[in-house]
Amino acid sequence: MPTYRVTLAYDGTDFAGWQAQGAGRGRTVQGALEEALARLAGGTRIPVAGAGRTDAGVHAQGQVASFRLPTGWDAADLGRALNALLPADARVLEAAACAEGFHARRHALSKLYRYVMDTGPVQVPTRRRLAGHVPWTLDEGRLRAAAALFVGRHDFASLASSGGSVKTTVRTVTLSEVKRARPASEVPPAPGPTWIYEVEADGFLRKMVRSMVGALVEAGRGAWPLDRLRAALEARDRRLWPAPAPARGLTLVRVAYGEEATPERPGDRE
Amino acid sequence: MPTYRVTLAYDGTDFAGWQAQGAGRGRTVQGALEEALARLAGGTRIPVAGAGRTDAGVHAQGQVASFRLPTGWDAADLGRALNALLPADARVLEAAACAEGFHARRHALSKLYRYVMDTGPVQVPTRRRLAGHVPWTLDEGRLRAAAALFVGRHDFASLASSGGSVKTTVRTVTLSEVKRARPASEVPPAPGPTWIYEVEADGFLRKMVRSMVGALVEAGRGAWPLDRLRAALEARDRRLWPAPAPARGLTLVRVAYGEEATPERPGDRE
Repeated sequence: MPTYRVTLAYDGTDFAGWQAQGAGRGRTVQGALEEALARLAGGTRIPVAGAGRTDAGVHAQGQVASFRLPTGWDAADLGRALNALLPADARVLEAAACAEGFHARRHALSKLYRYVMDTGPVQVPTRRRLAGHVPWTLDEGRLRAAAALFVGRHDFASLASSGGSVKTTVRTVTLSEVKRARPASEVPPAPGPTWIYEVEADGFLRKMVRSMVGALVEAGRGAWPLDRLRAALEARDRRLWPAPAPARGLTLVRVAYGEEATPERPGDRE
Repeated sequence: MPTYRVTLAYDGTDFAGWQAQGAGRGRTVQGALEEALARLAGGTRIPVAGAGRTDAGVHAQGQVASFRLPTGWDAADLGRALNALLPADARVLEAAACAEGFHARRHALSKLYRYVMDTGPVQVPTRRRLAGHVPWTLDEGRLRAAAALFVGRHDFASLASSGGSVKTTVRTVTLSEVKRARPASEVPPAPGPTWIYEVEADGFLRKMVRSMVGALVEAGRGAWPLDRLRAALEARDRRLWPAPAPARGLTLVRVAYGEEATPERPGDRE
């Protein structure tokens, strides 16, 4: 059966996360996508694999999902048809045919997440759905030093929320950087500086990025010295770790794949 | 009685506009502010005057409201107390004591509005609440030429929605400019260019800015030649004008005042 991948953007605010949870348990992006695909497939259920199981309130600008369809589709047609059926807070940015057997989660090599954090006494209301907010002044040097702690291969058990069923809590972080946001010309400036945290790894545990951000805030405002953070990471005990930051500032930016995700040539599909 | 002005920012999405509409007719920003002020004034009703009567769905980053309080307040305390009582989608950015008799609407010299319009086949869902969207390519030269039509003193009867009760439909536009948005570093880039329209005038009729934007879109995509637009403006007949753009892209940016709005010295207030 022809295999496809779609790149999705969504506003996570009104979704109960990515993963379908069964009837009556909240609308999910996976559920919306599977519903749209079933309509395109004449009622046949089309199971969808998503690269990242984003939590309720987490946004995406580059989530990737894979599925197989009973009949071949032109990729551009498929994208347009899905956008006609999906709710307005989820959009297909790109659709492509890919090699049979491609699986968006199993074949993902790495994922990049971004967290946006406003600071200052008041958060501008139009930024509220897309950025976290703390009233404190955060020190750039401390933010950067704390972010650098996560780079490399570590056991992130201290940052894993319960409820996951993972075999190992070891992950390799290839990028963990804080930078100051460059404000857009079209949105109101935040009263305090806005900080952007970007982190890329071969995989993430549940609420791992938000736990990283929670620690960055404690470090940045001077409440947690770097040594305490390092010790808490090494302790592999989540009770010692700062509380995770709220979901609304978090976006799944990009998922990287190897060659198996490359779209096939048009002739290969039929 | 001591007179105060507050500068307000709000996300207009979930408000039925600025103006209080009586019980059961939707939450409004004025209603929320008056409710918060009544609590600070021991239950006394505090009537509030707003500079711009923004419609449902229209945002503000610089709305100004004035009111009198039975007792004197430190301005910073007043701002903090209001923010503790207001809903999260409306915030006081600044509070100040001002000259007795100051009235935020009657004394406003000019207002600046901004409209953000995404283009391209798909709008990124996280931009949906704060930017309009058209699928067409808009020509920068045509956008600019159409925007320039509005500059100066004109009878804008063609752009006025019914329902207003204004004495005259003549307004003086001092700024009317289209520019391309510079994307922020922290938000996903739109698939097509984003256009920003800024317009400043001594006053605006109901839906006037959105009617301007509706015309810019028709001109920018090449559907309306400039001559037709000019003739429709001169005809003073709203049936000849393009449909207004949706509210969600519109923000009241700034209200300008003369000297009477200047905060008084601390000692003057009591």
